[in-house]
Amino acid sequence: MQSTLYKAPIYDDDTICALATPAGGALGIIRLSGQHTFDIIRNICPHIKESAKTRTAILANIISAEGDIIDEAIVTLYNKPHSYTGEDCAEISCHGSSYILNKTIQLIVSQGARIAKPGEFTQRAFLNGKMDLSQAEAVADLIAASNKSTHRIALAQMRGHFSSQLSAMREQLLKLTSLIELELDFADHEELQFANRHELLQLAEQINTRITNLAQSFATGQALKDGIPVAIIGKTNVGKSTLLNRLLHDERAIVSDIHGTTRDTIEDTIDIQGITFRIIDTAGIRQTSDTIEQIGINRTFAAIDKALIVIWMLDATPTEHEIKEITSRIKQQKVITVWNKADLLTPQYNKTTADNSRTLCISAKTGQGIRELEEAIHDAASIHELTEQDTIVTSARHYEALRRAHESIGRVIKGLNTELSPSHHTPTELIAEDLRLTINNLAHITGGAITPQETLSSIFAHFCVGK
Amino acid sequence: MQSTLYKAPIYDDDTICALATPAGGALGIIRLSGQHTFDIIRNICPHIKESAKTRTAILANIISAEGDIIDEAIVTLYNKPHSYTGEDCAEISCHGSSYILNKTIQLIVSQGARIAKPGEFTQRAFLNGKMDLSQAEAVADLIAASNKSTHRIALAQMRGHFSSQLSAMREQLLKLTSLIELELDFADHEELQFANRHELLQLAEQINTRITNLAQSFATGQALKDGIPVAIIGKTNVGKSTLLNRLLHDERAIVSDIHGTTRDTIEDTIDIQGITFRIIDTAGIRQTSDTIEQIGINRTFAAIDKALIVIWMLDATPTEHEIKEITSRIKQQKVITVWNKADLLTPQYNKTTADNSRTLCISAKTGQGIRELEEAIHDAASIHELTEQDTIVTSARHYEALRRAHESIGRVIKGLNTELSPSHHTPTELIAEDLRLTINNLAHITGGAITPQETLSSIFAHFCVGK
Repeated sequence: MQSTLYKAPIYDDDTICALATPAGGALGIIRLSGQHTFDIIRNICPHIKESAKTRTAILANIISAEGDIIDEAIVTLYNKPHSYTGEDCAEISCHGSSYILNKTIQLIVSQGARIAKPGEFTQRAFLNGKMDLSQAEAVADLIAASNKSTHRIALAQMRGHFSSQLSAMREQLLKLTSLIELELDFADHEELQFANRHELLQLAEQINTRITNLAQSFATGQALKDGIPVAIIGKTNVGKSTLLNRLLHDERAIVSDIHGTTRDTIEDTIDIQGITFRIIDTAGIRQTSDTIEQIGINRTFAAIDKALIVIWMLDATPTEHEIKEITSRIKQQKVITVWNKADLLTPQYNKTTADNSRTLCISAKTGQGIRELEEAIHDAASIHELTEQDTIVTSARHYEALRRAHESIGRVIKGLNTELSPSHHTPTELIAEDLRLTINNLAHITGGAITPQETLSSIFAHFCVGK
Repeated sequence: MQSTLYKAPIYDDDTICALATPAGGALGIIRLSGQHTFDIIRNICPHIKESAKTRTAILANIISAEGDIIDEAIVTLYNKPHSYTGEDCAEISCHGSSYILNKTIQLIVSQGARIAKPGEFTQRAFLNGKMDLSQAEAVADLIAASNKSTHRIALAQMRGHFSSQLSAMREQLLKLTSLIELELDFADHEELQFANRHELLQLAEQINTRITNLAQSFATGQALKDGIPVAIIGKTNVGKSTLLNRLLHDERAIVSDIHGTTRDTIEDTIDIQGITFRIIDTAGIRQTSDTIEQIGINRTFAAIDKALIVIWMLDATPTEHEIKEITSRIKQQKVITVWNKADLLTPQYNKTTADNSRTLCISAKTGQGIRELEEAIHDAASIHELTEQDTIVTSARHYEALRRAHESIGRVIKGLNTELSPSHHTPTELIAEDLRLTINNLAHITGGAITPQETLSSIFAHFCVGK
């Protein structure tokens, strides 16, 4: 089965075109790529000569087959390989009328081009060696980036920071492999032992640490991409929904004085200092005979489990029962204890309600203390300001490759260790094989190993058309 | 009051910037225009040198004040006056991430530019003499064009067809004026009469005909822009809403077997062979005691009044009362009589139901005969295929100027006529004054006369930002 999946990517030589901007603006950009690009451009813009300069903005009329002017546009040609895709490319900047853009695309298609699939321009850039696969994937992440953290991660990855780290590891792995294979070639001479096994082990462990760090960064990467989950919990009517609305600057949740108003868990994302948080409002915890409300309360407990940060709201000293019910569910989560209704009451702050808890006094209703709470949420995320050097893995595909590499390098380390104890000798061939596997697993990230067409298709299917 | 309105347009020398494409695409284009454009570009893209070529696509990193890379972008510089606005301009083609686009615009603004107002780039192009006012207005029309007719009209106007017609008329008017003013200068010499009055009259009437034709084209222009109104009328339950849905290829109106289902007039537009029609479904006409239904029926009559084309639906030979009620309301409208339910009955076609009526047999339910009906609607519009040479006035502002010019040239003709009959002599000065008025009225269209700032503001306020 595996082998049928692993076929070389199909590279068709169609000339492709797509609208690269949404309709409804002042401008609309149409892109073309492929061997017939320049012919098509000269057919639809007869004033553009064969000698037209590339990378130069050319004012040109687009003329229909009937000889009607469709638009006065700006055309820029990019000759291969000095283009985004590595092929001959063109960009046509039209007036942003949907009529003009549709007519122009129809005209281009009538000249033999076809509409590009999502991500097909970037896929061609990858297939033509203009970028590796992890860089190509970062292009889509960059376009989707909605805050400082995801933008920085995607941009660094697109610019090849991750690729160069992988490349450095590959160098180390190749060195390790060659040392071990050298020994393999002289396996008959049992007295020869070229490589110092302790040094080999040290090198393998260095590589393993790097792989592990990268794999571990995936949790952060996921959280940054989807938003770090923050659950607001507490008794009924303590003001959780009011706080959600206050944090979201929106009337997201229905607020009332009636106990148990919120039954579903309601969530939405906010950006605090460049990090996205997913704030989850939960049903208030209380003894209830209402079946639907009880389901809601069970969901609250599930939300606590999934959260990285828990905001525990209080408006009075909690009962022993509440303390027990909540603290029993807190594991790794950071807890921020928030005394609400600061405008109404003076609580006893010194009451410690949970471990690793920070305590604040706010009024969700008036907004008092909300700034401090946002600060506390940001601090609890304990994601330091990312620098350009930080590599954060955000792709499940990359994580999977790293996990497999971690497994194979783990076997290498185990093998080298047993080599050191003569009683459990692992054949050097097996160690060498696991090293090759590690190299291959890492190579999948950049597309250096053969990448199945299905993988490529699923990667580029998430792109927008025109990129 | 008039005099305070007529002040010279204020031309500020701010450098302006705007996003010229909607968010959510593969690419996002930011435009800049103004004297500091190149300085700002070099500040945010330090790799772009002072010697950078204009009209050339430059790959450049956009760097924030903190030294972070915001994006890898393509920058094209346009030096004045060889640019859209006539000023130094730049276009930055970024990855289409809203984060990147916002950050880049913030950065540009922090460098001293300000966000452009809607249409401000085109307004500057007008103020710098890159295009006249009617051409500038056509830019917005071109972007809004949604079908072949409106596209063709806007493109021709943007390319200066209307302007050159106005310019030819201006030449004629100036000739006329000089002939009359020459006479004026020698007014003492009563025996002298330089110009042949018959020739002058002929010339004035030629100009008047041209102005009248242009003014009359406004009705067509309006109809093409907003859609030509087509009212579907008939008895209750004859299938009007089914026909509307059929024509719109949509479930726009609620259809039921119950008489009087449609109460409001429902309308939507369709495109038939490049012309937009506004199809109006109306309440069925019948005697009713239902007050709300009666209001609906009164609206039906109002819809007939406003329509240019009426589709009168029948499923049986109409009563004398129906014939009288409807034909009494048909004035200039073209009528298409449609026998519906062709799948169910065989009507008597030879019954003439109205003058200037064409009769068709359809089934709104099955779609039978709908093609022929669309053809009939298109023919009834009697708007011949527009050629590039046709000038159709679509702007109320232009129509108003033409109407005034028509009035003043009318007075010129009257004056010249009375000059010919010695008993009602009009002073030559008055004729010359009316000629100057005519010239000035026409000049308002192209912005050749002084255009009040308020007029300019209202013209460009209808533009999208970034154009």
